[in-house]
Amino acid sequence: MSIAQFSAPVAGLPKSCAEIDALAVNTIRTLAMDAVQAADSGHPGTPMALAPVAYALWQRVLRYDPADPTWWDRDRFVLSNGHASMLLYSVLHLAGVNDFDRSGKPTGRAAITIDDIKSFRQLDSRCAGHPEYGVASGIETTTGPLGQGAATSVGMAMASGWLAARYNRPNFELFTHRVWAICGDGCFMEGITGEAASLAGHLRLANLCWIYDNNHITIEGKTSLAYSDDVPTRFRGYGWNVMHVSDANDIDAVAINCAAARESDRPTLIVLDSHIGWGSPNKQDTAAAHGEALGVEEIAKTKRFYNWPEDAKFLVPDGVRERFAEGVGKRGAAARAAWSATWGSYRTKFPAEAAELECLMRHELPAGWDGDMPTFATDAKGVASRVSGGKALNGVAKRVPWLVGGSADLAPSTKTLIDGAGSIGTGEPGGRNVHFGIREHAMGAICNGMALSGLRAYGAGFLIFSDYMRGSIRLSALMEVPVTYVMTHDSIGLGEDGPTHQPIEQLLSLRAVPHLRVWRPGDARETVEAWRQAMLYTHGPSLLALSRQNLPTLAETETKAREGCARGGYVLTDCGCNSPQVILIGTGSELALCVSAQKQLTEAGIRARVVSLPCWGLFDAQDAAYRESVLPRAVTARVSVEASAAMGWERYVGISGSAIGMHSFGASAPIAALMKKFGFTVEAVVAAAKSQVSRS
Amino acid sequence: MSIAQFSAPVAGLPKSCAEIDALAVNTIRTLAMDAVQAADSGHPGTPMALAPVAYALWQRVLRYDPADPTWWDRDRFVLSNGHASMLLYSVLHLAGVNDFDRSGKPTGRAAITIDDIKSFRQLDSRCAGHPEYGVASGIETTTGPLGQGAATSVGMAMASGWLAARYNRPNFELFTHRVWAICGDGCFMEGITGEAASLAGHLRLANLCWIYDNNHITIEGKTSLAYSDDVPTRFRGYGWNVMHVSDANDIDAVAINCAAARESDRPTLIVLDSHIGWGSPNKQDTAAAHGEALGVEEIAKTKRFYNWPEDAKFLVPDGVRERFAEGVGKRGAAARAAWSATWGSYRTKFPAEAAELECLMRHELPAGWDGDMPTFATDAKGVASRVSGGKALNGVAKRVPWLVGGSADLAPSTKTLIDGAGSIGTGEPGGRNVHFGIREHAMGAICNGMALSGLRAYGAGFLIFSDYMRGSIRLSALMEVPVTYVMTHDSIGLGEDGPTHQPIEQLLSLRAVPHLRVWRPGDARETVEAWRQAMLYTHGPSLLALSRQNLPTLAETETKAREGCARGGYVLTDCGCNSPQVILIGTGSELALCVSAQKQLTEAGIRARVVSLPCWGLFDAQDAAYRESVLPRAVTARVSVEASAAMGWERYVGISGSAIGMHSFGASAPIAALMKKFGFTVEAVVAAAKSQVSRS
Repeated sequence: MSIAQFSAPVAGLPKSCAEIDALAVNTIRTLAMDAVQAADSGHPGTPMALAPVAYALWQRVLRYDPADPTWWDRDRFVLSNGHASMLLYSVLHLAGVNDFDRSGKPTGRAAITIDDIKSFRQLDSRCAGHPEYGVASGIETTTGPLGQGAATSVGMAMASGWLAARYNRPNFELFTHRVWAICGDGCFMEGITGEAASLAGHLRLANLCWIYDNNHITIEGKTSLAYSDDVPTRFRGYGWNVMHVSDANDIDAVAINCAAARESDRPTLIVLDSHIGWGSPNKQDTAAAHGEALGVEEIAKTKRFYNWPEDAKFLVPDGVRERFAEGVGKRGAAARAAWSATWGSYRTKFPAEAAELECLMRHELPAGWDGDMPTFATDAKGVASRVSGGKALNGVAKRVPWLVGGSADLAPSTKTLIDGAGSIGTGEPGGRNVHFGIREHAMGAICNGMALSGLRAYGAGFLIFSDYMRGSIRLSALMEVPVTYVMTHDSIGLGEDGPTHQPIEQLLSLRAVPHLRVWRPGDARETVEAWRQAMLYTHGPSLLALSRQNLPTLAETETKAREGCARGGYVLTDCGCNSPQVILIGTGSELALCVSAQKQLTEAGIRARVVSLPCWGLFDAQDAAYRESVLPRAVTARVSVEASAAMGWERYVGISGSAIGMHSFGASAPIAALMKKFGFTVEAVVAAAKSQVSRS
Repeated sequence: MSIAQFSAPVAGLPKSCAEIDALAVNTIRTLAMDAVQAADSGHPGTPMALAPVAYALWQRVLRYDPADPTWWDRDRFVLSNGHASMLLYSVLHLAGVNDFDRSGKPTGRAAITIDDIKSFRQLDSRCAGHPEYGVASGIETTTGPLGQGAATSVGMAMASGWLAARYNRPNFELFTHRVWAICGDGCFMEGITGEAASLAGHLRLANLCWIYDNNHITIEGKTSLAYSDDVPTRFRGYGWNVMHVSDANDIDAVAINCAAARESDRPTLIVLDSHIGWGSPNKQDTAAAHGEALGVEEIAKTKRFYNWPEDAKFLVPDGVRERFAEGVGKRGAAARAAWSATWGSYRTKFPAEAAELECLMRHELPAGWDGDMPTFATDAKGVASRVSGGKALNGVAKRVPWLVGGSADLAPSTKTLIDGAGSIGTGEPGGRNVHFGIREHAMGAICNGMALSGLRAYGAGFLIFSDYMRGSIRLSALMEVPVTYVMTHDSIGLGEDGPTHQPIEQLLSLRAVPHLRVWRPGDARETVEAWRQAMLYTHGPSLLALSRQNLPTLAETETKAREGCARGGYVLTDCGCNSPQVILIGTGSELALCVSAQKQLTEAGIRARVVSLPCWGLFDAQDAAYRESVLPRAVTARVSVEASAAMGWERYVGISGSAIGMHSFGASAPIAALMKKFGFTVEAVVAAAKSQVSRS
């Protein structure tokens, strides 16, 4: 039964369910067409094609109560082809989703009003070009960069399983929710989606369903220009259950297949044949329907085809909102009421678990959460920060049960296993160690999905491979979710693996990402503090750049690291007075060089201050007085030391300062040879400092 | 027939071919074991497992003459699991590959000597931790970051087809070579490999064969921790021909399957079951064999198992080098001799084509190559730099027939189609427009593969999606190959698509990559010059950041852009004297703002200089006198204007200068609203300049 057959006149209330369904579907379509036309910018074709699918999902499938879009056990709906944002906005509007702020409190308004839709793609509109998490309730994740939504949905499905495993009790099924994502050709060509699908298949995530919008059209033209995957076969290769719906207008078939997906013991892919720009006489099935307004004339023709009043704009016919209220609204309210009753009893019967869960869902940390952080004695031999980082991680993990994560097949190197905790595996959703496989990009997105579901997620790898996951790291930052990235082997100090593995430009590149806090701690104590700060920072991701090689545990950090790291940078050791002639600024493995250089400078009668600057972003956020106290403007003789790109350090040493850093790629050799070759020696720091003092 | 059965004693020359084959294979194995042990660093297990495979490939399959590893029609061998580098080094050594420099001249030494192997992973050794292109002949591409080699091999296979289509003539088959790559589990989990495989399958690259080292082991343990793809099914989904070899020691089976791959009409995957660390009694089939030395004792036991003298190190038994000479050496020499004869006749019969081909292979540009570059009149309305860039690209394309490239499904937006040229498509290898599909990461690697084969390759997309391809861009830079990346929609100026699509940190992130020249031209003329410079720069990649919106064509660039851009930065317009009070530095769309601000400042009696700085890297490479002439140290009142991260501009404006830039993510709105909201206005530039003048 195709919706196409039931395009109904607006005048006179429609009589049959099918008619009102058709009216609702065409409302979604026309809202998208009108909004894109008004903005003269956007993507009408996919909402027109997928309106029946979104309608079927919301009305017949999703476990979702528009009255409370923060309900913990709601199904998640992800629009991975985020450019079709009007599809989501229309549905959120028609379903009457209430708005809640990020702390989980209702704001008293609708998530998306018709006025929001009318201001689609205008400044401060909730209806941004692509769906942005945090802007309006019901937007479960930011999408637009292709593949991110799909991969994030895997993290959401893993989180659902994890929450169920940890908190459900017999007859108290607090977590049963499923994750539904719509993906386009773009998502399916992107590598990140393959990575995520492979892991989802491996884990047999039965609570995950993707609907693949098989419309044969991309921006350059027909997909056959560049793409001839046999998608069902490819996904069977990933271990997925694959189904097929041959008509996107067939809402019954969509609903039936989604119901069947619920019965699968593995993730389900529904391949859905659709027609981009469905109903547009001249643009349907062409790239012209993809990324620009249809034009006034074509809209008129299309509306005529829908049997829609040609001149009406942003029309929501009587009965449509009511239809949603009777559908997803009623069903969702009943489901949430039942759940609330369960939750009420659960709180009584399992108060400890309930308290833990509430803490988790409030995005707070348990009282005394940092009571097991490790301590380190001053020690010249020291310890690699990947090792002290591993101990800090385990300290946190003991008290924060919802710290969950792992590495992209590098756990023995990154030291990121949670001791004594099981792994998330096939049929074992409740572990805490995730084996992401060699899939960095998906790892980032999966961490985002877990974080959006309340978990404190971390992902680990070598710093160089942050390059492979920048798309996901950026979304952590844009969504302001607290994912922790543990990136070890943070400089040429990793040695023999050579230039392919030695980060040069990565630190600067990451420091430039808004909201992302990049840490490069100088010893074991600073590493503990970096982890502490990462846990305390809940409005964005943190990235810890940790060393492969041992770092001395410095005497000076014993009393200063905690308070100093909380400010991102601090005076580690001064010249015995408050009037240094030169400031040495170090991070990570080069901090100890600065301390040694300071001693030699003192012997030479030069007053040097050592500033530890483990986190630029946090330091920059301090008030001017504090920053001036650490880096007095009057002291222009400055030397920075970091075994990473020198570029960027002008921010702290100025144009005339000396930035000891890398100006080329690294080399394959043992660390001692490299440090000498590239000039990371006490002698070089001393010489630069003396030269700075002479200059100034 | 398994090699295992023929481990032969060294004393006494072996009698049978099988015995000498076994000896050769075990030489590869023991060289790898010994080199890793000597370095106490590296990856012995995979060379031990794959020695018979590499041996079979080189001895029986590759069309390759060790005497001339620069032969245009040699088969390409790519070790995508680059950590197994000792496998490659051993074979290059034993096959007696000669060394040639990057200009194609013989250096008179061997590519890899036994001493090079003995200094594996030491400073300045040719045997770096991972194979590095340019360090020794026979290393066809840099590998190590997983998946890059596989994806690059697709570009090489496309280039082989392209060269054949353009230059072969009936009975003059100059290009017939094939591309062979060995890939590991890591490669196969990485998304980039899926992207590349999908495109290779689409294009039916029959000249491509991947051997998948199916050893079931990764760093964290068994692959079953994270990976249960049915690889053959998945690859059939990509449209590949799939075969299976169940014993990596069976060199006959490897050779037979490779021969069968030659008969396929599509790319071939050979799934090869192997045992990591084969022969090591305690480490075979374990993660312990992967990434560290076996240890002296285990090496002794393993050598015993190979029937090898336990105490011998770096032993190459008599007969092994000779065996290679009889195998790949003789076969390669004969093939090259036949080819040379063909080439000799070709030069006579097709002198124009031959001359073109020689120019291409010398990495030079044809005489008058820039004779069709477009010119632009001064024009206040102007033109988007993506549009002028498209015209410049087409100007180059007219005269440089081997300029080949395309976009990741954004050609209508990036304006990067070569007019009148066909597309590379299924069975159409000779087009010049590549439809990469929505696969940015593979696009970069494929461009690398094409560039390594002599083509001038370009890849295009939105600047934001450079994030998706950083791994490949970095390898272009590390290998110093001249790929051109055309990245449009280069700032918040793209407007309504919003923060997911608006680059902020990307420009700085890319500028920090060694050898990569990032261009952000300020008008149409500078855009032409950026293209000109990109073509002239052959020791690394160039990236052009181009605007979506129109940029005025400035009167000032008419006479100054050409010479100025050749230096990366220049004085666009001065204050009428040589003593500016303030310097305004702009790039791209903000250059015109600086020019307008200068006019207002002049009216206000302030002497301002406008500096255009389209390419930091090239400007920084100028001599100090030139840089001082553009940015005199004495003028500390400086304002930079760029609609991108402000961070990093301290390099040119100093700590006290004013960097007008972005300090947050962007927003979804029309461009005018955004530019006002984020402070990119003439008024803001004027105000900042006045404030700078007051300060200084």
